[in-house]
Amino acid sequence: MAATPPVAIIMGSQSDWATMRNAAETLDALGVAYEARIVSAHRTPRRMFDFAANARAAGFQVIIAGAGGAAHLPGMTAALTPLPVFGVPIESKALKGEDSLLSIVQMPAGIPVGTLAIGRAGAINAALMAASVLALGDPALADRLDAWRARQAEAVAERPSDDA
Amino acid sequence: MAATPPVAIIMGSQSDWATMRNAAETLDALGVAYEARIVSAHRTPRRMFDFAANARAAGFQVIIAGAGGAAHLPGMTAALTPLPVFGVPIESKALKGEDSLLSIVQMPAGIPVGTLAIGRAGAINAALMAASVLALGDPALADRLDAWRARQAEAVAERPSDDA
Amino acid sequence: MAATPPVAIIMGSQSDWATMRNAAETLDALGVAYEARIVSAHRTPRRMFDFAANARAAGFQVIIAGAGGAAHLPGMTAALTPLPVFGVPIESKALKGEDSLLSIVQMPAGIPVGTLAIGRAGAINAALMAASVLALGDPALADRLDAWRARQAEAVAERPSDDA
Amino acid sequence: MAATPPVAIIMGSQSDWATMRNAAETLDALGVAYEARIVSAHRTPRRMFDFAANARAAGFQVIIAGAGGAAHLPGMTAALTPLPVFGVPIESKALKGEDSLLSIVQMPAGIPVGTLAIGRAGAINAALMAASVLALGDPALADRLDAWRARQAEAVAERPSDDA
Amino acid sequence: MAATPPVAIIMGSQSDWATMRNAAETLDALGVAYEARIVSAHRTPRRMFDFAANARAAGFQVIIAGAGGAAHLPGMTAALTPLPVFGVPIESKALKGEDSLLSIVQMPAGIPVGTLAIGRAGAINAALMAASVLALGDPALADRLDAWRARQAEAVAERPSDDA
Amino acid sequence: MAATPPVAIIMGSQSDWATMRNAAETLDALGVAYEARIVSAHRTPRRMFDFAANARAAGFQVIIAGAGGAAHLPGMTAALTPLPVFGVPIESKALKGEDSLLSIVQMPAGIPVGTLAIGRAGAINAALMAASVLALGDPALADRLDAWRARQAEAVAERPSDDA
Amino acid sequence: MAATPPVAIIMGSQSDWATMRNAAETLDALGVAYEARIVSAHRTPRRMFDFAANARAAGFQVIIAGAGGAAHLPGMTAALTPLPVFGVPIESKALKGEDSLLSIVQMPAGIPVGTLAIGRAGAINAALMAASVLALGDPALADRLDAWRARQAEAVAERPSDDA
Amino acid sequence: MAATPPVAIIMGSQSDWATMRNAAETLDALGVAYEARIVSAHRTPRRMFDFAANARAAGFQVIIAGAGGAAHLPGMTAALTPLPVFGVPIESKALKGEDSLLSIVQMPAGIPVGTLAIGRAGAINAALMAASVLALGDPALADRLDAWRARQAEAVAERPSDDA
Repeated sequence: MAATPPVAIIMGSQSDWATMRNAAETLDALGVAYEARIVSAHRTPRRMFDFAANARAAGFQVIIAGAGGAAHLPGMTAALTPLPVFGVPIESKALKGEDSLLSIVQMPAGIPVGTLAIGRAGAINAALMAASVLALGDPALADRLDAWRARQAEAVAERPSDDA
Repeated sequence: MAATPPVAIIMGSQSDWATMRNAAETLDALGVAYEARIVSAHRTPRRMFDFAANARAAGFQVIIAGAGGAAHLPGMTAALTPLPVFGVPIESKALKGEDSLLSIVQMPAGIPVGTLAIGRAGAINAALMAASVLALGDPALADRLDAWRARQAEAVAERPSDDA
Repeated sequence: MAATPPVAIIMGSQSDWATMRNAAETLDALGVAYEARIVSAHRTPRRMFDFAANARAAGFQVIIAGAGGAAHLPGMTAALTPLPVFGVPIESKALKGEDSLLSIVQMPAGIPVGTLAIGRAGAINAALMAASVLALGDPALADRLDAWRARQAEAVAERPSDDA
Repeated sequence: MAATPPVAIIMGSQSDWATMRNAAETLDALGVAYEARIVSAHRTPRRMFDFAANARAAGFQVIIAGAGGAAHLPGMTAALTPLPVFGVPIESKALKGEDSLLSIVQMPAGIPVGTLAIGRAGAINAALMAASVLALGDPALADRLDAWRARQAEAVAERPSDDA
Repeated sequence: MAATPPVAIIMGSQSDWATMRNAAETLDALGVAYEARIVSAHRTPRRMFDFAANARAAGFQVIIAGAGGAAHLPGMTAALTPLPVFGVPIESKALKGEDSLLSIVQMPAGIPVGTLAIGRAGAINAALMAASVLALGDPALADRLDAWRARQAEAVAERPSDDA
Repeated sequence: MAATPPVAIIMGSQSDWATMRNAAETLDALGVAYEARIVSAHRTPRRMFDFAANARAAGFQVIIAGAGGAAHLPGMTAALTPLPVFGVPIESKALKGEDSLLSIVQMPAGIPVGTLAIGRAGAINAALMAASVLALGDPALADRLDAWRARQAEAVAERPSDDA
Repeated sequence: MAATPPVAIIMGSQSDWATMRNAAETLDALGVAYEARIVSAHRTPRRMFDFAANARAAGFQVIIAGAGGAAHLPGMTAALTPLPVFGVPIESKALKGEDSLLSIVQMPAGIPVGTLAIGRAGAINAALMAASVLALGDPALADRLDAWRARQAEAVAERPSDDA
Repeated sequence: MAATPPVAIIMGSQSDWATMRNAAETLDALGVAYEARIVSAHRTPRRMFDFAANARAAGFQVIIAGAGGAAHLPGMTAALTPLPVFGVPIESKALKGEDSLLSIVQMPAGIPVGTLAIGRAGAINAALMAASVLALGDPALADRLDAWRARQAEAVAERPSDDA
């Protein structure tokens, strides 16, 4: 039987996957195992409740949650688990993710969600946050993360190019 | 044993009562019974879950939910009950309720929250919405609501006064 | 002679129908009869006045009103009828519905509009709100609404798909 | 019997008078007669309807309308009269008049409201707009307005003072 | 020699004409003569100064000014002429006209600009405002404006059409 | 010689301490050691550079960074260390922390900052995030965090009180 | 006869001095001479025109302009002089300087205003910008500016104090 | 060996060049030499640190820095050099540059960034600001800048054209 991976990537709907797959690909690049699930706080509240309340017992260590609009998934997950939860505001159609951002980041004292940027950058960075957390107890991952960051720095060209 | 009143007024914390008591007082004035409870989506998610999932069976007909900041209580309640849910955005300290408003009103298709104005006016109006819903099946309440509205109209002075 | 249906869907202009037809289709799916009309608060204020002031006597029970920009139709309708009014902010061109939302939701104490999300999701949810209100006095509709919500929950896939 | 003055100053509630009296005082300073009334679009829609639909026949030439929050009075008045309507957004509690401003200024094509600044400055300027309109047909008023503007310019000190 | 028309339509750049021509076409429809000019507050401040300071003496009665971004043309024109000035916020690229709107409407006490909606609707409405002002002294124009408004009301269909 | 504590709390100025001490007090309550320093990205960029570049080698495991306005401290720290960085937007005077929030949360792909709510709630939650991260490798801390959360839940009263 | 100082500090009204005196005091601390004037773009457009058009000939080298609301003074000054103009958005009452900021910073291509932060910080920084510009041609001033910055860095305490 | 040009144009990534090349082209038109570099505050903080701390010694006189989102490059550069720094907010995807603008302009007292408009206009204007600063010590450049501004004014057509 496969072990539970350290990271769960959850999202409110299939349409969020276009954004959240960037988190998955970043974890792939860092060699961090994960599981991706659709867990809608609004349409499947019992599934969310069961997932979040059991996440630690199931063996997860970090949760990445993406949601848009009145984005309640990250905060409700954080209410139901003591694990670190990182939230990714999905860019919404009318308000461009400003609603998603405020719904995720403005949590009341007592239940934290570490919130990343709106959209693709936020999904990538949620994966990097998860890796940085796991790297505290995993020196090999710490090395891979250092290497990833070094490559990122080296990839920055010295001068802008008209052909790029 | 006392019967369940038709309206539940729920809120995320004691501090929200300063706003939500305006809903209670308006229901008092209209002769509509209600029960007021503190149900924090974030600090007491199980209490919220139990309350919302059982609200219809318990005999409630309409739910008024007030919350501030990343305000998840109205939307999560609506995810767990088919009863009409009216949401009141509490004015938050830094963002003045803009976060509360967007977190409540921007619900995804499928789970509705009828959202009222930020703060005291929203709390009063949530009570009036609840009364208008209940009045569809209660002619005596419809009459009381009509009278309340007529008195409100009559109370508008013809001319502004420097002494008011 | 056809009876008045329980729900009226009104909107400020033909162009709003692209959004508001989502409300109509949702009511169709729930087996709730409705009538759709164009009633412009600004260009046809007398038509609006007549419609709203007579809506209860005509037999309507719930009104869904969609409008954009300086969106006055939901609030003015609510000023003229004691029936529950649900407002749908249409996404506007420049400000993306932020103006529509604030013009609908920020009603003063005394005249409530239950406001839904900007655009299509709001139109669908206004229909669901109307159904939840009517279901209080119509057990068969309550059953249909429960079934609709159950189907919605079942339709949420467990895992995101790259092919979706 | 007193003649109808050229300007009507209308507002949604007594509390708006604290702002709108600045319009009145500016008209006083310019020697322009006016009448101030409370006309709530929401609480007294019939009064508003009667006032606005009859304003031209009654002899008014310009209407100044102040309102806050979901501010419908200026736009609804403009829908009911061909007279020029100037709107003053009252500073609202939570959103500081941003809601009032958008509700007044974002009128659809076909029904215009000339909108001034939020609050006291807007009330003063609505009076100046009204005077500039009336001055087109009243050379004596044009002279008084010129003199008022000249005095305003002369009152600007050359240098800032620490004692002011 | 041609007489000065009653209305001047000024704008900051050629690109604003796509919006402001809606004002011109509306004045055409109402039989109101006008002159359209490019007058940039920033790139041609002397031209603006000369135009605005001489507008009344030249015979203009109403000025319509469109501008975008840090939109100074309406307010600076109003600073230089006692004529009524109506401002049209042009939709800007990044901020969608929110910057244009605030730069035009938030004038300080003493120098008013009657501000219309962002973009095309605002341009049409500025023309209607100008017509309503001129109609105070021109009964034939008042009749044309009434007819225009009546036609507009009649053009609103009773029911939404799927084929529209 | 005292060991480096696991958490560093850094902030841009002494005035931020009024907010950030809430993080310190929460860590105290959870039995997590920390060090609090003033490190201004703008006024002491070299101090910031040295601190952040050496934080991991010094033995820190998690960094909490509070800053206001154009808040660069959290993001620049994250650029210089692979450790998890949690950012707290300080409420700014004019824009109420909206500037602080956007400056912290909208980091580009590659350098993450887990952002908390504006102000006091964010500071408390940054401490809770830090604790949840450290608890992954510290079962005793995990137990203390569970107990803290349980006490928090128990402290929520069932019903609102007029005397509170 | 006194020589023209290198810096002019202009502002729209006496009330702006409470903010702009921070620019003056910072220039005093840096040993940079300046002249402070009230020049209202709206109430005294001719004074503004004369000042700005003659500023270079008069001997000024840098202009600092503070204004609030629909803040046109910095941009209009920049339209009339090729000298560097730095704009300070004054915090406005209702919109807290967001209007001032956008009115100053969103200048069209061709006429630049270097914009600083809203309020007191912006005024201080406008003075520092002016000094940095003048220091390019004044080594002694460059030394004083370096010393000022060094003192600022040294004044940052290492650790936050509960007694501060 | 080539001399250091007076202006450095730096930007956070290759993708910013689409905006920042407008600054380069404007400097070309004015005959001002410059060097364009990619310097990411977040991905290459050491490169940024070295560049900024050595900019004055290297011979640069003015720095133009463009960045988007949580845009830290202009402010961090200003923290590390006493040279004048002009910031260009790049239009970001979700928030359209509002985040970039606030992250650049809301600098704390002590470290100034002269901020230009969002996007292309801001890039052009940053070049013009740089030229106006350099022109204080370069009469030939002052003449070229005057000529550029004169041509710009002459290029404004008198009347809008339907064919443009």
